[in-house]
Amino acid sequence: MRMKIVQFGLGPIGLETVRLATTKPWAEVIAAVDYAPDKAGRDLGQLTGIAALRGKRVLASLGALGRQKPDLVFHTSVSRFQAAFAQLEPLARMGVNVVSSCEEMLFPALQEPVLARKLDKLCRRTGARMVATGVNPGFVMDILPLSLIQVAREVEAIHVQRVVNASTRREPLQRKIGSGLGPDDFHRRFREGSLGHAGLKESAALVTHVLGWKLQRLVETGEPVLARHHIQTPYLSVKKGRTCGLHQRAEVMAAGKRRLTLDLRMYLDAENPHDAIQIDGEPALDVLVRGGVAGDGATVAALVNTAPRLLSVEPGLRLLTELPLHNRFA
Amino acid sequence: MRMKIVQFGLGPIGLETVRLATTKPWAEVIAAVDYAPDKAGRDLGQLTGIAALRGKRVLASLGALGRQKPDLVFHTSVSRFQAAFAQLEPLARMGVNVVSSCEEMLFPALQEPVLARKLDKLCRRTGARMVATGVNPGFVMDILPLSLIQVAREVEAIHVQRVVNASTRREPLQRKIGSGLGPDDFHRRFREGSLGHAGLKESAALVTHVLGWKLQRLVETGEPVLARHHIQTPYLSVKKGRTCGLHQRAEVMAAGKRRLTLDLRMYLDAENPHDAIQIDGEPALDVLVRGGVAGDGATVAALVNTAPRLLSVEPGLRLLTELPLHNRFA
Repeated sequence: MRMKIVQFGLGPIGLETVRLATTKPWAEVIAAVDYAPDKAGRDLGQLTGIAALRGKRVLASLGALGRQKPDLVFHTSVSRFQAAFAQLEPLARMGVNVVSSCEEMLFPALQEPVLARKLDKLCRRTGARMVATGVNPGFVMDILPLSLIQVAREVEAIHVQRVVNASTRREPLQRKIGSGLGPDDFHRRFREGSLGHAGLKESAALVTHVLGWKLQRLVETGEPVLARHHIQTPYLSVKKGRTCGLHQRAEVMAAGKRRLTLDLRMYLDAENPHDAIQIDGEPALDVLVRGGVAGDGATVAALVNTAPRLLSVEPGLRLLTELPLHNRFA
Repeated sequence: MRMKIVQFGLGPIGLETVRLATTKPWAEVIAAVDYAPDKAGRDLGQLTGIAALRGKRVLASLGALGRQKPDLVFHTSVSRFQAAFAQLEPLARMGVNVVSSCEEMLFPALQEPVLARKLDKLCRRTGARMVATGVNPGFVMDILPLSLIQVAREVEAIHVQRVVNASTRREPLQRKIGSGLGPDDFHRRFREGSLGHAGLKESAALVTHVLGWKLQRLVETGEPVLARHHIQTPYLSVKKGRTCGLHQRAEVMAAGKRRLTLDLRMYLDAENPHDAIQIDGEPALDVLVRGGVAGDGATVAALVNTAPRLLSVEPGLRLLTELPLHNRFA
């Protein structure tokens, strides 16, 4: 028995998800959907380079699936849960399971409690299961620290620091960190939400939820990192003194204390990229991921690896923390 | 609603489990059982130093529970699954849930496939859930690497190295690593199984199972670490040249390759204690727990933290990997 899979969204992550899924013995990619005029109608085999997918045309809408009902959809198209909701509601009605990369969906009740409840209710009625995953959010700043505290008697506070060398990453990431902007433009666009890293607050909310902390304040800040010298990447160039990345930070105050800090630096030519997690507790834990959990390959892995795990839980809009670590599918 | 808890086994880990459980709002310790004549009949409040438990006598057997049916038993008494089976079967018949520190129970099918199947079947019939957990086995060499590979597309091999400074640990651990023995005695007693670390093979078997590797060979070796100078601890002394600890190692060969190495060094005066995990894969991961996940406090935390998670899964003898990361109880 193989899982019939539809890919929804054919950006770089979506294409790579298709490629990885086709290597899994439990998965059969039956179709892909992308609204974009430069994708819809094209040959999926050609787009992905996977010969076995030749002859499958990219569909312009879910409706075009016709009677082909997938077991699971990989949804990689938007960061905001409000936008995801519109795309996922029809899938929920069909009773189709979804693993999504939507950052806000990691903890959808934070921004959209009403929509989250609505989607959850619908899923429970139709038997659909939905969950969001990824590397950040979805692992480094939430699931990994929550995995570590399985062996902690008491947790006073958690601090996570992630440094990403954006020079090694793809163009969209180099742009979304504000590369090339003046500091004022950076601040304006960060406030507008048109740049910056999505999902930091959701990581904070998930950790806070699991630890049962009574949230008093969740603050997010974003500052530009300024280039100390001229920087040139394959995609763009940044003059000295202009923005070459961002320093974004979320802090949780609960029970009168700073309980959680998520500190993210993503910038061009960053030295010593790493993920570091400190648990203040009993016992204290001090964990270092040398080099950090690297980018897009890991995100795609998180999506694909989550699929069999999702199928073992009760229907509903689920949190990633509700899934078992492993489930053998078929 | 609180979970009615019985503690089975009142060694150092059992006593500490009681102490930690009494701090949890979801738990109510209703009784404790220990066969040992120096424990049975004694006052649990006095033994644990927890005033709220004053007046509860330690029971000499499960039978003495009478009509008090616990929701869950913390079982901390033996390392071998065969011995655990005899203690857990009556609990399975009563439909009582169990979180155990029994090392072999982390992957009971390795040593005792028939007994494991029998207990699983019984649990499914009565509605009992049972699982084993801990730090090692139960976290550092199995659950933690398996948590890390959630973000790996491909896993070629996993290597875990753990160095424990036994000087900082309790007397039973200092003894079970062979402290003071001559090398020949160490080897003889390691072969007999009367010293050494239990559960290394079970960690290897669990990882192998989850990764779906077809096991060709699982080899375990144990060597003494010899004292380079005279060592004195609060509990014992070791002359130069005698055993001051052990170097134990498990290796898994599968699909023509060495896929897994679990390398454990526990010795007196060990420098730079740590846990290190390398994942050869895509992406590669290199993780260091500075100082290592420290000892008994962490083991007790693992036991207590596992209880609410266990209650969310289907009845049966479960693997730790089948549990969700988090479940809010009550």
